[in-house]
Amino acid sequence: MLPSTQVQQRSVQTHRLANGLMLLAEPVATVESAAFTLMTPCGCSSDPADRLGLASMLCDMTLRGAGERDSHALINDLEVLGVERGESVGISQTSFSGATLAENLDDALAIYADILQRPHLPADQLEAARLVCMQEIRGVEDEPAQKLMDELRRRTYPDPWGRASHGNEAGISAATAADVRQLWTTEYRPNDSILGVAGKVDWDRLVEHVESLFGAWKPVAFKPSLEQAQVNTSPHIGFEGNQCHIGIAFPSVPYRDPKYLQAWAAVGVLSGGMSSRLFTEVREKRGLCYSVSASLQTQLNRASVLCYAGTTAERAQETLDVTYSELLRLRQGVEQSELGRLKARIKSGLIMQQESTSSRSSSIARDWYHLGRVRTLDELGRQVDELTAHSINEYLDEHPPSNFTFATLGPQPLTIPTAA
Amino acid sequence: MLPSTQVQQRSVQTHRLANGLMLLAEPVATVESAAFTLMTPCGCSSDPADRLGLASMLCDMTLRGAGERDSHALINDLEVLGVERGESVGISQTSFSGATLAENLDDALAIYADILQRPHLPADQLEAARLVCMQEIRGVEDEPAQKLMDELRRRTYPDPWGRASHGNEAGISAATAADVRQLWTTEYRPNDSILGVAGKVDWDRLVEHVESLFGAWKPVAFKPSLEQAQVNTSPHIGFEGNQCHIGIAFPSVPYRDPKYLQAWAAVGVLSGGMSSRLFTEVREKRGLCYSVSASLQTQLNRASVLCYAGTTAERAQETLDVTYSELLRLRQGVEQSELGRLKARIKSGLIMQQESTSSRSSSIARDWYHLGRVRTLDELGRQVDELTAHSINEYLDEHPPSNFTFATLGPQPLTIPTAA
Repeated sequence: MLPSTQVQQRSVQTHRLANGLMLLAEPVATVESAAFTLMTPCGCSSDPADRLGLASMLCDMTLRGAGERDSHALINDLEVLGVERGESVGISQTSFSGATLAENLDDALAIYADILQRPHLPADQLEAARLVCMQEIRGVEDEPAQKLMDELRRRTYPDPWGRASHGNEAGISAATAADVRQLWTTEYRPNDSILGVAGKVDWDRLVEHVESLFGAWKPVAFKPSLEQAQVNTSPHIGFEGNQCHIGIAFPSVPYRDPKYLQAWAAVGVLSGGMSSRLFTEVREKRGLCYSVSASLQTQLNRASVLCYAGTTAERAQETLDVTYSELLRLRQGVEQSELGRLKARIKSGLIMQQESTSSRSSSIARDWYHLGRVRTLDELGRQVDELTAHSINEYLDEHPPSNFTFATLGPQPLTIPTAA
Repeated sequence: MLPSTQVQQRSVQTHRLANGLMLLAEPVATVESAAFTLMTPCGCSSDPADRLGLASMLCDMTLRGAGERDSHALINDLEVLGVERGESVGISQTSFSGATLAENLDDALAIYADILQRPHLPADQLEAARLVCMQEIRGVEDEPAQKLMDELRRRTYPDPWGRASHGNEAGISAATAADVRQLWTTEYRPNDSILGVAGKVDWDRLVEHVESLFGAWKPVAFKPSLEQAQVNTSPHIGFEGNQCHIGIAFPSVPYRDPKYLQAWAAVGVLSGGMSSRLFTEVREKRGLCYSVSASLQTQLNRASVLCYAGTTAERAQETLDVTYSELLRLRQGVEQSELGRLKARIKSGLIMQQESTSSRSSSIARDWYHLGRVRTLDELGRQVDELTAHSINEYLDEHPPSNFTFATLGPQPLTIPTAA
């Protein structure tokens, strides 16, 4: 199904620095770009409970000057190198990513070495960073779908695993320059950091360069997050307007579980593509939603399937009921014909991913985080080949969708199913 | 600046069918994918004034069965071919695009030949399509930023050029099966259609295949749209909440203008990147916005710079004033240092585009539409090399930002500058 003429026989090189930083690279000879993804273990799960949003504020602050560059020079120099950059704060990590011409990779990594190890965190820019973070929070108020899904995650996981990375106004208001620096001191560390690179790179030179940039970074002892039970509140958030947003979640297995591919494929049958069950049953046949989807959201040690449907207030109850009944129907298993489509989509997706150095740099870093190793595209292709409806249905027998969590946002509460 | 070792010496092949359909392809030997973009001249500017949204409804309907496939089979077969597809309706065109394994391109194009030439447009699915379109419209109600920018475009251009492709409830409610079929009959036509392909393709075989699929498609006479002056209304839309959305537009030159690159570069100095003026002055220095940006939106014969800023109600007036003053300041020209950054970003962007067959297929189709020819990446690179601050400033002297159009959406109206 994925003949070796299509999936290039690329190898992923790995090298662990003495301080724990893991360097991974997939050299690609046929491109002119190079991309990197640098993850450090400072997610919003590291935020103190009275400083929610602090990791996001720290991430913003790290770009306001580092090493010998002030705020202006740092951003300017990254732009002069043509770096298409992005930062994101997740539950367990802050990721800095960039893509540029291969010849500029070394210089770009040198700037990121400063950002992680020698950020200025200038006190005189704290208020500007606070305003940016505050406005991100207020922006969510304008995005009811995001607000709803934030609430669904909060209800689904024990704290701190259900947090939204933007935090809340109380946390951002209270954060001091000392708080920001303290978080950086303990959570930006080489141990548990991963640097994934893909593109036109010479491995031996890259190892040498990364050793020189990051070799002196001192490890910091890991401090586990303490779990707290969720605070149970009403599943409904009142919101004026004629739209209703519906979220349903149920537990799944994380990325490193041997049955993850089966769990993921079951969600692929449910959502993704216009032949998917949710699209067909909810949107296409009944015209109920303007958007319906489900995705498997995985963390290191836990995972959930998160479903979203957006519709009008008058059709909200029917949308909830039909969506929910599709989740229950998944218990009866999937058909071989549904699997054929899904495999074709995955195969196509793997080839597209192969052709994007940005995608590959983040995929190999993600693989290492979850698995402690990297799968080649070739290996992934073989795993997909071997996927059968039988193995998915076995998984669904062992893990039937159940223990649902609901959240709704709209003008009036809906009737939440009580069975399951 | 763009040495030939980085920009591959690719050539773009062209072939016009007797019926007018223009076939373009950029063969790429080093990839395994192939992507296409098929544009047909049915944009929302073709909607009858009392059927706004009809082109979107037609686009939805074309996928509900075509040729020998019913709705279900059509979508299923595209998914089995692993086609990552998308459709979009713009002002002047409907675009169907897809990317898949190169070996599946022929079969995918055969399905699209049916979609464009032999759609069933089944009357029994009209209500489902109507609901989908209606919910798109209602979804915009939940997206105040989009709603605001829709209104800004409507105020900026004479009708039909400022329309939003989703139309309005009255138009979608009124549309009949006969309306949908009528629009298809006149606006889906080979003359003025463009098929752009990029990836692992054999040009001679592709020409032969496209001739066999599209050669019998009958041309239809072109009927120009009639322009209407805008209806002038208040620039403010009342909207509850604590956010305010601000739009400012001013005229620019279209893609095919010899000074387009200069116009585009001036907007690049204004927006795009964290060293850009809007980001620095509005967001970074004053922490005013959670989002601020400007882009040059071009049509065939007209273009505008559209600026957006989203902020809190209490900071809205200051945000409007500071953003507006940055637009006025652009009249004084740009600095060479700002240009260096911009060129680096463009260079990096060109290399990234080179590595995406989807991007290339749409870029070459877009070039043909606007220019009647296709620029290679190499040529684009040289044009960027030759760009100087002097030439941009010459352009800005001839076309100083002026004749501004404003639109705001939020809890209360703002004071709109009267000068300029």
